[in-house]
Amino acid sequence: MINAKLIDLATALGVSVTTVSKALKGGYSDVSETTRAKVIEMAKTMNYKPNANAVYLRTNETKTIGVVIPTMVHHFFSIVLNGILEEAENRGYFVIILQSNEKYELEKKQIDLLIQKRVDGILISITNETDDFAHLNAIIKNKTPLVMFDKIAKIVNCSKVVINDRKAAYDAVTFLIKKGHKKIAHFRGSYTPQNSIDRFLGYKKALEDNNIKFDQTLVYVCDKNADFEDGYSNAKKLVQDHDDVDSVFAVTDLVAIGIIKYLNEIKIEIPEQIAVFGFSNWFMSTVISPTLTTIDQPGFEIGQRAASILIDELAEIKANRDVIHQTIEIPTSIIERESTLRKLKTELI
Amino acid sequence: MINAKLIDLATALGVSVTTVSKALKGGYSDVSETTRAKVIEMAKTMNYKPNANAVYLRTNETKTIGVVIPTMVHHFFSIVLNGILEEAENRGYFVIILQSNEKYELEKKQIDLLIQKRVDGILISITNETDDFAHLNAIIKNKTPLVMFDKIAKIVNCSKVVINDRKAAYDAVTFLIKKGHKKIAHFRGSYTPQNSIDRFLGYKKALEDNNIKFDQTLVYVCDKNADFEDGYSNAKKLVQDHDDVDSVFAVTDLVAIGIIKYLNEIKIEIPEQIAVFGFSNWFMSTVISPTLTTIDQPGFEIGQRAASILIDELAEIKANRDVIHQTIEIPTSIIERESTLRKLKTELI
Repeated sequence: MINAKLIDLATALGVSVTTVSKALKGGYSDVSETTRAKVIEMAKTMNYKPNANAVYLRTNETKTIGVVIPTMVHHFFSIVLNGILEEAENRGYFVIILQSNEKYELEKKQIDLLIQKRVDGILISITNETDDFAHLNAIIKNKTPLVMFDKIAKIVNCSKVVINDRKAAYDAVTFLIKKGHKKIAHFRGSYTPQNSIDRFLGYKKALEDNNIKFDQTLVYVCDKNADFEDGYSNAKKLVQDHDDVDSVFAVTDLVAIGIIKYLNEIKIEIPEQIAVFGFSNWFMSTVISPTLTTIDQPGFEIGQRAASILIDELAEIKANRDVIHQTIEIPTSIIERESTLRKLKTELI
Repeated sequence: MINAKLIDLATALGVSVTTVSKALKGGYSDVSETTRAKVIEMAKTMNYKPNANAVYLRTNETKTIGVVIPTMVHHFFSIVLNGILEEAENRGYFVIILQSNEKYELEKKQIDLLIQKRVDGILISITNETDDFAHLNAIIKNKTPLVMFDKIAKIVNCSKVVINDRKAAYDAVTFLIKKGHKKIAHFRGSYTPQNSIDRFLGYKKALEDNNIKFDQTLVYVCDKNADFEDGYSNAKKLVQDHDDVDSVFAVTDLVAIGIIKYLNEIKIEIPEQIAVFGFSNWFMSTVISPTLTTIDQPGFEIGQRAASILIDELAEIKANRDVIHQTIEIPTSIIERESTLRKLKTELI
């Protein structure tokens, strides 16, 4: 890529590089207004643009943040990225995006690349298989600000933006119980990511608090991706194993949509025979039949807050002030749609 | 972000910065193997990482490409980005992503930012309202390689990766006609983007070639975003205006899904009363009821090829060879699902 450099402007005008540089920056009394006007005019003519990377070498900032997400083709993460991009842009930062493809080894590699690239800070949502956090601690040791969002590791010492997965799951299952459901299955995520664990714990606690005995055989584990296929195949097993199940709380909307697809195929009525509750509020949940009751997980706000905290921390560091890490919980809510009963059981009697 | 610098290593070892630099690069006969080993050891101890931005100032490359897409929260573009990220990563490039939010002014601004950032090249899919291409010609004038994908402007002199929208639409409508449909509506995109124009022209040509008179009142225009709401509201108008319409070809899957939603609500049977044909093959099309017949638009391949061509062009420029622009057409195919009749009309008789 070719642009006029300071030296080209200086040569064209027959003045020193220092004069050109001062003229472009402005505010120097030893450069006359006439000279300044000439320099600016020539800069336009020669299509001079300040070199953002040279600025970096002067300020030690790249004005670039790195983001590592598990996967790009994912409605929730695309909404989070939207929030990150919007906040970064408003505050003058570029965003480099890398995917870990839910692989721990790739996640490590991507972080190394971002550190080599000298990004000012890193935002990350970890993979479902990440259970060693040395690579994240290395970022912090390297004095690069790090903010985790959505899929986090509690023990890593940095700021975090999350939802309260346990409470959201608790609310979802309590909602089902209040509708009169007693035999509530849970299609959970895999064993490692914190949000999958927390959603399971919220499910279990809601049963306990409502005197419903926890039944391990009603818990089905989805694989690492927790997707449509998992919902579909586990729904098949569920109706074979438990002909009296009355509802399912799924770890994600995609899993819930797989369940709906299977139940529709075998003509089990939703919600009358089996109610279905999702998690995340993907757009798809509004178009499937029946529409899906779910937990709204505000992705845009999660991304925006994560980027905002990271950029705030960069400013603190620049000002030589101490950074105080914070964990922000973004509130969730229940979006009631057709896949659960519209009336409370007591109203039905 | 703090990392040990060359000078820190030199000070720690009591040697010159030049010696450290040569030792790290290797291949210099005036630096002994013993010294080299010591430098490498110290670099590890002090967590020295080469500065990717300093490399830029040496080679005039940033190893970064910029991507401008209309919107991040969009299944098709997230698949395209996946292809871009994978190709860029395989070839050692970082990717900075910016959104234009379908706004021409923002698109211009994003391009300015990328040029200031000195990205090596730019990939762009333009907004639905972009009808002036001076900002794109400026990139080319600036000698920054540019590759357009999906939503392109034919008159801009650069490489392009597209599908043949006109042919794909022609194939879709011909498919409907072969199934016996005669009164085929088209929900088209807005008037500016080339792909919306081409899909409309393909629709029209298929009618003509099959001796079906083109009827302007069967064409409904979606707004700039061509989304679910457009499909839903235009479907409502369509059934009011034309009680004998037998099929709809929609400009995107989202529009088609809006149609399906409305027809389901008013109990019009799909495909028996009205068949629906989409465009793009979003994941959603496989889970909606009935599942949607559509054109498969291979987003991953589009992204991968666009990034690949851009990086090839960068290599050509670096080698001082002429760049020959190319326009690549990625083949599309029809994915037949439940929303169109499974049998040909002739078979039904």
